[in-house]
Amino acid sequence: MNNSVVSDLDGILKEITPVDRGWIGKAKDRTSRLVMPHRALGRLHEISERVCGITETLEPSVSKKTVLIMAGDHGVVENGVSAFPQDVTGAMVKTFLGGGAGINAIARQAGADVLVVDMGIIPEIDPDSMDGGERFLVRKVANGTTNFTKGPAMTHEEAEQSVTTGFQVTSSLFEKGVDIIGTGDMGIGNTTPSAAIGAVITGISLERMVGRGTGVDNQSLAVKRDIVKRGIEFNQPDRNNGIDVLAKIGGFEIGGIAGSILAGAYHKRPVVIDGFISTAGALIAHMLCPAIDDYIFAGHCSEEQGHRAMLDFLCMEPILDIGLRLGEGTGGALALNIIESAVTVFKEVLTFDEAGVPGKE
Amino acid sequence: MNNSVVSDLDGILKEITPVDRGWIGKAKDRTSRLVMPHRALGRLHEISERVCGITETLEPSVSKKTVLIMAGDHGVVENGVSAFPQDVTGAMVKTFLGGGAGINAIARQAGADVLVVDMGIIPEIDPDSMDGGERFLVRKVANGTTNFTKGPAMTHEEAEQSVTTGFQVTSSLFEKGVDIIGTGDMGIGNTTPSAAIGAVITGISLERMVGRGTGVDNQSLAVKRDIVKRGIEFNQPDRNNGIDVLAKIGGFEIGGIAGSILAGAYHKRPVVIDGFISTAGALIAHMLCPAIDDYIFAGHCSEEQGHRAMLDFLCMEPILDIGLRLGEGTGGALALNIIESAVTVFKEVLTFDEAGVPGKE
Repeated sequence: MNNSVVSDLDGILKEITPVDRGWIGKAKDRTSRLVMPHRALGRLHEISERVCGITETLEPSVSKKTVLIMAGDHGVVENGVSAFPQDVTGAMVKTFLGGGAGINAIARQAGADVLVVDMGIIPEIDPDSMDGGERFLVRKVANGTTNFTKGPAMTHEEAEQSVTTGFQVTSSLFEKGVDIIGTGDMGIGNTTPSAAIGAVITGISLERMVGRGTGVDNQSLAVKRDIVKRGIEFNQPDRNNGIDVLAKIGGFEIGGIAGSILAGAYHKRPVVIDGFISTAGALIAHMLCPAIDDYIFAGHCSEEQGHRAMLDFLCMEPILDIGLRLGEGTGGALALNIIESAVTVFKEVLTFDEAGVPGKE
Repeated sequence: MNNSVVSDLDGILKEITPVDRGWIGKAKDRTSRLVMPHRALGRLHEISERVCGITETLEPSVSKKTVLIMAGDHGVVENGVSAFPQDVTGAMVKTFLGGGAGINAIARQAGADVLVVDMGIIPEIDPDSMDGGERFLVRKVANGTTNFTKGPAMTHEEAEQSVTTGFQVTSSLFEKGVDIIGTGDMGIGNTTPSAAIGAVITGISLERMVGRGTGVDNQSLAVKRDIVKRGIEFNQPDRNNGIDVLAKIGGFEIGGIAGSILAGAYHKRPVVIDGFISTAGALIAHMLCPAIDDYIFAGHCSEEQGHRAMLDFLCMEPILDIGLRLGEGTGGALALNIIESAVTVFKEVLTFDEAGVPGKE
């Protein structure tokens, strides 16, 4: 692990290396000796072996867990792309701090901390004035993005800043001893930029990529598809340049999530991504540095219709598929228990020899 | 809940009633007010609402969890249906007591106790002579079943005894305050009787229902299919009579699991079933009393090929599908965290009103 953290994007990307296959091989060797039929716990073995590869040890820990919720507002909401009013973003940030949202309940059950980052919401929320303010970091890039049908969502400098901010916040957690993070998001309207990013980077049609988000009706869904189409046509993002895509059609919280993922790869720590918005962040991170893919676990497959296509593009198989479409990091947080179980099995189950159990005849 | 537990099968079945839809309706009403888009946590809502229905409260608890491993040996093993020798059954029981098996690791992560019941293994294991003996109950119906290609696996009396024993052991846990149980199994050869039960009750072909178990090769798989076919043809079990099916082609641990499921329905407590063998137990319980279906959660879909057909017959959608084929209760134990998360969300997430968050426009 690197102790002094670089802060410029090129410096970060230069330090990221693929996961060491040698450690995965050593882990597979231990799995093959566990007192059970060969690889009888299926994906749990793949998960634990990859955690060994990521962390470069056969004694990995994933017990110290944090869900990091990146929050941002979106100029494109003025076009009527969401079923909820824009001030819900700030209201939900306050709910997270009070501990009353879906992610808080799930994180409590999983033994995970929750940290909320204002990456660029419109309202000013002062951590010192809030109960739960210790769970809140204000790292605002700007007070919401620009409507991307009228210009780029943000400048290139702001796009880089959102990624490096996400990187720094997450690096600081790893340096404080956090073993694994789950990514989360809050931002009314953010399935719209996420769908735009998904369409541009994967090349999938807007019909497949743009979905109902928090629950828009058929008429608003048609408007949403048209808005995404106009945003892409107007801005002409370069799909091979993650910062260009993020700047033109992205969001501050999506950049922050991309930065969290880079931090996982940089510090050799696993990152569990949540649903549609988190995976848009993963697509940005992937275009910046494809080596990040091996550091990510896809927590679940969202009901948001384009999510499976994003995961397919990244060659990721989700751990859960139970009809979630909330965001906030909920699907990733649910998967944290599965990952911890996988690591517990890997470390604590005896081998045939240790248990004194006869093997296959 | 009933305080004095009846012990004869007819007396048990008479007391079991379907889940009260009224409580599920009340639970759905609360879900609809939670501070998130409508039913945005998908199956988590269905799970928590059904737990409310089962337990007849809007404040259910699933925090006190036990995985109950029923163990038995199988006469049919002499025909070469398993990749492992028969003495592995007893050796694995000892491994469970020592805490070194897959289920022990997963249960520890989930905060669940493990209790092992000798329903009819061949060796005599004295709890008092074992570390971990307090996790072990000897309730032996007999020292292994008879080879069902040569006669019924057990008598009708033994079949009833295995079910009522499972019922009593599980009832005693619920009476001590356990909120939820996961079913587990250990018995070398037990995918063979489970496949026979699955084929007879669901009507699915042996080609689809009989799989590789702990990992037999192609030649042994053909032998296994033939053994199941001969067992069914020789014994002619009456598919509408769960005790007849269990007696002729079943196993003591499968009967014990059926009894655990009846106990859940009787005491109005949720039961999470594991994979192929546990679901064979559920098929027996279902034929005895179809009202039990609503008290069961299917923890996962096993890699064992006939499992999906069994679940389809019971109209159950598994919570996880991650390539497990171990048994021991591992898939059910992994699902316990998901069920606990669902209940935590239901009880602890604020409503829109409580959170002061504006609703859908």
